[in-house]
Amino acid sequence: MSANGKYEDSHLYRIRHSAAHIMAEAVLERFPEAKIAIGPPIEDGFYYDFDLPRPPTDEDLQWIENRMKEIIRKNVDFKVREVTPEEALAQFKDQPYKQELIRDLVSGRVNENGNEIAAPAEKMTFYTQDTFTDLCRGPHVANSREINPDAISITYKKPAGAYWRGDEKREQLTRIYGTAWETPEDLHEYLNLLEEARKRDHRVVGERLGLFAFSPLVGKGLPLWKPNGAILRDTLERWLRQTQLDNGYLPVVTPHIGNLNLYRTSGHYPYYKDSQYAPIQIDEEEFLLRPMNCPHHIMIYKSDMHSYRDLPIRLAEFGTVYRYEQSGELHGLTRVRGFTVDDAHLFVTPEQLLEEFKNVVKLIQYVFNTVGFGDFRARVGIRDPQSEKYVGGDELWNKATNAILEACEELELPYNVEQGEAAFYGPKLDFIFRDVLKREWQLGTVQVDYNLPERFDLEYVAEDGSRQRPVMIHRAPFGSMERFIGILIEHFNGAFPAWLAPVQAVMIPITDRNVEYANSVANQLRAAGMRVEVDAGKARMGAKIAANRELNIPYLLIVGDRDAAAGNVSVRLRTDEDLGAIPVGDFLKRAENIIGAMSLEL
Amino acid sequence: MSANGKYEDSHLYRIRHSAAHIMAEAVLERFPEAKIAIGPPIEDGFYYDFDLPRPPTDEDLQWIENRMKEIIRKNVDFKVREVTPEEALAQFKDQPYKQELIRDLVSGRVNENGNEIAAPAEKMTFYTQDTFTDLCRGPHVANSREINPDAISITYKKPAGAYWRGDEKREQLTRIYGTAWETPEDLHEYLNLLEEARKRDHRVVGERLGLFAFSPLVGKGLPLWKPNGAILRDTLERWLRQTQLDNGYLPVVTPHIGNLNLYRTSGHYPYYKDSQYAPIQIDEEEFLLRPMNCPHHIMIYKSDMHSYRDLPIRLAEFGTVYRYEQSGELHGLTRVRGFTVDDAHLFVTPEQLLEEFKNVVKLIQYVFNTVGFGDFRARVGIRDPQSEKYVGGDELWNKATNAILEACEELELPYNVEQGEAAFYGPKLDFIFRDVLKREWQLGTVQVDYNLPERFDLEYVAEDGSRQRPVMIHRAPFGSMERFIGILIEHFNGAFPAWLAPVQAVMIPITDRNVEYANSVANQLRAAGMRVEVDAGKARMGAKIAANRELNIPYLLIVGDRDAAAGNVSVRLRTDEDLGAIPVGDFLKRAENIIGAMSLEL
Repeated sequence: MSANGKYEDSHLYRIRHSAAHIMAEAVLERFPEAKIAIGPPIEDGFYYDFDLPRPPTDEDLQWIENRMKEIIRKNVDFKVREVTPEEALAQFKDQPYKQELIRDLVSGRVNENGNEIAAPAEKMTFYTQDTFTDLCRGPHVANSREINPDAISITYKKPAGAYWRGDEKREQLTRIYGTAWETPEDLHEYLNLLEEARKRDHRVVGERLGLFAFSPLVGKGLPLWKPNGAILRDTLERWLRQTQLDNGYLPVVTPHIGNLNLYRTSGHYPYYKDSQYAPIQIDEEEFLLRPMNCPHHIMIYKSDMHSYRDLPIRLAEFGTVYRYEQSGELHGLTRVRGFTVDDAHLFVTPEQLLEEFKNVVKLIQYVFNTVGFGDFRARVGIRDPQSEKYVGGDELWNKATNAILEACEELELPYNVEQGEAAFYGPKLDFIFRDVLKREWQLGTVQVDYNLPERFDLEYVAEDGSRQRPVMIHRAPFGSMERFIGILIEHFNGAFPAWLAPVQAVMIPITDRNVEYANSVANQLRAAGMRVEVDAGKARMGAKIAANRELNIPYLLIVGDRDAAAGNVSVRLRTDEDLGAIPVGDFLKRAENIIGAMSLEL
Repeated sequence: MSANGKYEDSHLYRIRHSAAHIMAEAVLERFPEAKIAIGPPIEDGFYYDFDLPRPPTDEDLQWIENRMKEIIRKNVDFKVREVTPEEALAQFKDQPYKQELIRDLVSGRVNENGNEIAAPAEKMTFYTQDTFTDLCRGPHVANSREINPDAISITYKKPAGAYWRGDEKREQLTRIYGTAWETPEDLHEYLNLLEEARKRDHRVVGERLGLFAFSPLVGKGLPLWKPNGAILRDTLERWLRQTQLDNGYLPVVTPHIGNLNLYRTSGHYPYYKDSQYAPIQIDEEEFLLRPMNCPHHIMIYKSDMHSYRDLPIRLAEFGTVYRYEQSGELHGLTRVRGFTVDDAHLFVTPEQLLEEFKNVVKLIQYVFNTVGFGDFRARVGIRDPQSEKYVGGDELWNKATNAILEACEELELPYNVEQGEAAFYGPKLDFIFRDVLKREWQLGTVQVDYNLPERFDLEYVAEDGSRQRPVMIHRAPFGSMERFIGILIEHFNGAFPAWLAPVQAVMIPITDRNVEYANSVANQLRAAGMRVEVDAGKARMGAKIAANRELNIPYLLIVGDRDAAAGNVSVRLRTDEDLGAIPVGDFLKRAENIIGAMSLEL
């Protein structure tokens, strides 16, 4: 919301900003010796950082929240006034963090939120409500009656870990978060979504389903895919791979390292130095763990002469890349240090660009719709004209940007344009998926690139015999297998469509007598290509059903004496729907249809 | 041959050793100022290193070979006598390399071949034939009549690149190679095999078939798999993967780097430091490009508690590893710096070890027989008792070695035992394949390992509730995908079995009128899963057939007006066998049977 500039102008933004001040007022009543730092609105809420004499208890928080509601109900005004630096310093004589901010404001180093700016301030503003005054640019509500006291909530989670000015060498502060909404219903919906997101956390679900693990001895941000996760991943990969073959893509396989000169030529080095690992010395040369697959694919293109008749050439690889992320930014599968891109690079003539670009977009739309990611939008990322990290001249950038916009128009694809979201070598079209909890995730990407063909001196022989420069399209529908699967887990809460489920059916024999029949049915289903397990453990049937439902296995096939006699399975879906006893062949036909159609239903 | 001690005792060995001396005699006649170094027999022949006043010409070589034949025909005796160091130094007063050898012999540093030994020599032996005397321990033939002058041949290839004592800081010598056999027929067979091997060189065939390429900008020894190679590779991988799934293996996916501590724990570091790349610094930690996959799989095993009921657990991954090879030792796909192991690690109870080991051997036998590698033998590699590079105590080594020998006996698998061929953590069984040119290649391997479970403190809960240590089996049927495919290319000379062929059939329309029909047949075959191309180029039919036969495409499907009218294809095999015009459906049935059965026939 904040990126398109509207949130800052909204009433909700003012409500949250004002609630932050009211929280600070309440905290100072509870802890008169507290030192106050800053308290901005953020997406979905606000926070305020304090230096407190002791960590707040649940009782403190309850008291503070109650006190906030009381203050709000007093219908207090928010009054603004301009002050000189001297007045400000006097007002906050016992508040060292505010003192530091005021001094930096005067010197022009920071604004009220501690962010760096340029112009020195001669005047600053105070906002006052009730007994509390803060150094603040606003905006705020005019009166606290604009805030619904039943639509606010505050939380504190240890370890808060908020350093003053985000600098881990400075004081560690206590950050108390709050959220505020227009109505109590909005608050409840938000809290429910939060709770649902917590339950769906892919790290939790991934552990439950045995999808992946991390090991400190292997390294942070380097997932180990356990068998169930590897099967899920491979199923996605095989399907996309076949889809790509059907669309004229050609597979390639390339190494995970490359000579540093490869990245000097491409421009990845030194542009992306900070997100790369240190070079590896081999004999007299330096190699890089590859941060991207494009230069390797370019070298395959360059290994042969190509005629215009050969183009487009679409080289595809599920290529693993390694990029540096700070250890504090790592998060499960969605923020990792090594990930596999479902990458492809298309080498096309300028005449083919528009058509090929449109075909790529259609492929991505097909991929998203098939996996059940129907709610997505497109974003066109163009250069930030201020930045110098981009390679290539204006003409090439304009051509590439126009090609993307033209394709979007022809495909009637809704999109918005954002500056600074381009790749360093060209503009791109990103697909943003909104999951079942309404959270947005950036996934697939398509990029038009006139620059790397130039830097690598790529050629093809045109119909008239002349040497011409191809255009490149970089694209990845999933983006990163790791991140995509992380999102997939949260979106489906681990209950994957049957075709993706690591285990598609589990046989649950009612007694030991039925184990042999369970095994024979399992083998029959496996022979048809299904992934089936037999739960022959000692637990009672009810416990087995519960345990396997916990694993989100689509089909629970319960078999007792009657089923064995009749050649049936009693089918219970993971949704708890009971299909009753049906012949094995009928179940198999149903499951094969569901799986073959990659259906979201069971 | 030399490894089992028999070659050195053979008559052929003496013939070759004696031919080397005769070659030296002839060279000294041609170049009286030549300095002689050493001249041992080697596999399939012999060489002698000389310091010559100029590089030898073809004319020189022809003269030397002819002169050798003349000397042989003189029926000269090879006479041995013992000499003192003083006599030896006097004999070779103009031969600095011999002088150095004699002094080192006296000091006990080297033997006559320059290899290091321990005991100082007080006596040494001369062998003399005709006008030539050499410092030599023999053995030799008694008389040159034992050598067939029509069964010898010598060669010189620039750059010879033979350094004195293999030390690149010493003098560069001219190495002249020779070969000698019992009969002229044996010589011709050998030379024909050499010529055939040259033509089948996988680097040449790989280029012709568009399988792979190398790029100096990516790095030496790092193959780039082009589309045809990637398809071949993927076909092998998918098949083995499915075979493994059917045999209870579970796929995993793990990163290509690991914390250095992982390899300190495993013992790969520092034991294998010389074959590893320099560590990569990330934050405060060091990471290694992984030289082996086992530690990662071990960490997956360790990520859960396991009961005896869960074992055996068989974790499989086509895992790419990186190892240092000197740039001079790199060779196409068979000696590379990065390669993919068709790896699996089995975690078993001690009671399961024998059965699991036997199943692994059976799987490897099945794999080799299926790909047409029927001629293979087994080698049991055990510790070299002199070496200190092995980890673990005697008891564990003995248990592991006995398990392998017992399995071989039970499977009635012929094998020989070789010292020093074990992995550092345990003994192993290697499979040695003999290709169609009778060359031996080491491929698949199975290793029994009690040591890494100990070092990583692996456990499972036994039936009595106690914690027990599992045993590990490491195994890889192909060994390395790169090396295996290199050998596959040479064995089949690029004419792969149809199921592996990157392009299985090519449509050749006789005229432009037939292109549409060719495309429709191609689509019909593709829909059935075949890999089909259409050669719609402008070349004449004869040229197209020749060009596609060069690509070793199994089925050439020629279509003209009559075929189009009748719904036929005229089938020519790459062997040139002509099947005539048959209905498309009949061809498809035939091809599907051949491909489905992974047949070596067409």
